[in-house]
Amino acid sequence: MARIAVVAGDGIGPEVVAQARKVLDAVLPGVQATEYDLGAARWHRTGEVLPDSVLTELAGHDAILLGAVGDPSVPPGVLERGLLLKLRFAFDQYVNLRPSRLWPGVAGPLATVKPGEVDLVVVREGTEGLYAGAGGTLHRDTPAEVATEESLNTRHGVERVIRDAFARASRRERRKVTLVHKTNVLTHAGSLWSRAFEAVAAEHPDVATEYQHVDAAAMFLVTQPQRYDVVVTDNLFGDILTDIAAAVTGGIGLAASGCINPEGAYPSMFEPVHGSAPDIAGQGVADPVAAVLSAALLLDQLGHPEAAARVTNAVATELANRAPDVPLRTAEVGDRLAGYAAG
Amino acid sequence: MARIAVVAGDGIGPEVVAQARKVLDAVLPGVQATEYDLGAARWHRTGEVLPDSVLTELAGHDAILLGAVGDPSVPPGVLERGLLLKLRFAFDQYVNLRPSRLWPGVAGPLATVKPGEVDLVVVREGTEGLYAGAGGTLHRDTPAEVATEESLNTRHGVERVIRDAFARASRRERRKVTLVHKTNVLTHAGSLWSRAFEAVAAEHPDVATEYQHVDAAAMFLVTQPQRYDVVVTDNLFGDILTDIAAAVTGGIGLAASGCINPEGAYPSMFEPVHGSAPDIAGQGVADPVAAVLSAALLLDQLGHPEAAARVTNAVATELANRAPDVPLRTAEVGDRLAGYAAG
Ligand SMILES: CC(C)[C@H](C(=O)O)[C@@H](O)C(=O)O
Ligand SMILES: CC(C)[C@H](C(=O)O)[C@@H](O)C(=O)O
Repeated sequence: MARIAVVAGDGIGPEVVAQARKVLDAVLPGVQATEYDLGAARWHRTGEVLPDSVLTELAGHDAILLGAVGDPSVPPGVLERGLLLKLRFAFDQYVNLRPSRLWPGVAGPLATVKPGEVDLVVVREGTEGLYAGAGGTLHRDTPAEVATEESLNTRHGVERVIRDAFARASRRERRKVTLVHKTNVLTHAGSLWSRAFEAVAAEHPDVATEYQHVDAAAMFLVTQPQRYDVVVTDNLFGDILTDIAAAVTGGIGLAASGCINPEGAYPSMFEPVHGSAPDIAGQGVADPVAAVLSAALLLDQLGHPEAAARVTNAVATELANRAPDVPLRTAEVGDRLAGYAAG
Repeated sequence: MARIAVVAGDGIGPEVVAQARKVLDAVLPGVQATEYDLGAARWHRTGEVLPDSVLTELAGHDAILLGAVGDPSVPPGVLERGLLLKLRFAFDQYVNLRPSRLWPGVAGPLATVKPGEVDLVVVREGTEGLYAGAGGTLHRDTPAEVATEESLNTRHGVERVIRDAFARASRRERRKVTLVHKTNVLTHAGSLWSRAFEAVAAEHPDVATEYQHVDAAAMFLVTQPQRYDVVVTDNLFGDILTDIAAAVTGGIGLAASGCINPEGAYPSMFEPVHGSAPDIAGQGVADPVAAVLSAALLLDQLGHPEAAARVTNAVATELANRAPDVPLRTAEVGDRLAGYAAG
């Protein structure tokens, strides 16, 4: 039986996670879920962000399902560095997987793109680059202040995420991988990424490849998102590009993500891309689709691709049938999705 | 009389620059222009990218008008680092100015945004950050390879560009500055940017301010570009965000930019954001609007705001009257623009 750690978190986190659990229960009866209280609320109450004992307990699970953590009352960085990034790094979740589809029924912002035409996945590196936390400040608060941030990239880290991207591409219909970087300016890291990409590409003659600078990719995601299949890129570029991809496919309210350790040496973590949305928390109006799609990624990762497909199809049914002006009720959406998925 | 150095460059560069010069001559008779042969062609012919003697000569001009440099036959980085970035750094062009407007007559990609609704300017830092060229590689081509890129940010460099952004905002109607960074992850540089921003904001009580993470800003540029007035951000974030801003306002074919040294200690440089487009070079079909708008920025910087406004209005007239399916002729567009601007 799958053992899942659930971090419902703050704001709308608990509401949307509750729906994801309904759906999980509908397609995979007997999932064992243990709740962990982490996030802004706990930090305010106890000052704790992620106690070592909790980290150890989390490590004993097959996967983590996370709702959303954060609140404007918490200083920037505390929960990001102390909880979210801490988990990604501690559990070596080097594949940050972010699919984007323009679902039939969803009105995207682009005049030129029709529902069904966008179906891409960004494989974002999750444990290196500018997220390494290497940097410092000298002469703080004086005119001579200098602050640095260092992007650290290893052949080990770059090659393994590129390998994952190619493996995913070879299981998809279009079989294409786009490397995004900024090789003309970030020449050292860019060269490493390019050489690793070429080496892995050589092992996959069946997969088409292309390279784009990050500025061009940001532009093409707006003018021609249909062109992408699998995109592989570094941690910070992936952070930006996945929000653009979400924006052109109906917003982060529908965007799922997985922070994956493909080998399963550590638990992978699945979370909607949206935040805790304190402005609408507790009202039962948050859309749980992103959390439910994250649960589908979780099922896939744990070796239940059919259950995952049932959840994804349930979302497709839900979105295709939404009346544009009917206000949404979180729990009702969850009930419907669980019903569709149970079939 | 203004002394302009003209670097027409490669591909469509010479074609579009010729139109910009027509328009300049129409609004500011007597401009002295000296042509400099730089770019891919020269590099292929002589191996030279930017000889010191040329750099010295360029320094003696009031401004530089650049078409486009580059060609796929030149290895990545050679002209970027050796010419474009070299000029930005050597001439301390710390304000990289990139306005984006959705002009009436232009079909943007966004279903929800109407012509005239977007009018923003990104003030991108131009001499620091990840563009500093600080980085290296160890154990190249071995499994132990590590490559680094360092973002260098000084109080000096950050504060002066923020100051410029506020000065511009206070001359605009909406008087709003948005700082974009990633303070929750890049905590050192983010803190420096935030503190400098707050300090300068305190001197401008009449200017509204907001902060956004770069991923959120990338998203909002797609879903709600109308919300921005002046955006100030670091070098790399600015590179990405300005391409998104261009994409949502009709593409980089219309996007102008200025690399500005506001004090005039060195010449500022003005160039269309588009590249040399070798695929359409020499056919007389490239749109010169971005080059002409860059000339308007040049006029403004050299203290001719009325001439600049005449050029900008000429572009507005041209775009509002374009028939959608009539193929465009570069020289004819230039003639029309010169006529409107002189008129
Ligand atoms: C909250 C923040 C640390 C995080 C990131 O930058 O990775 C978020 O933006 C995301 O994309 O998951
Ligand atoms: C060509 C390249 C070095 C340059 C940059 O990254 O600044 C370009 O993308 C730009 O935006 O002017």
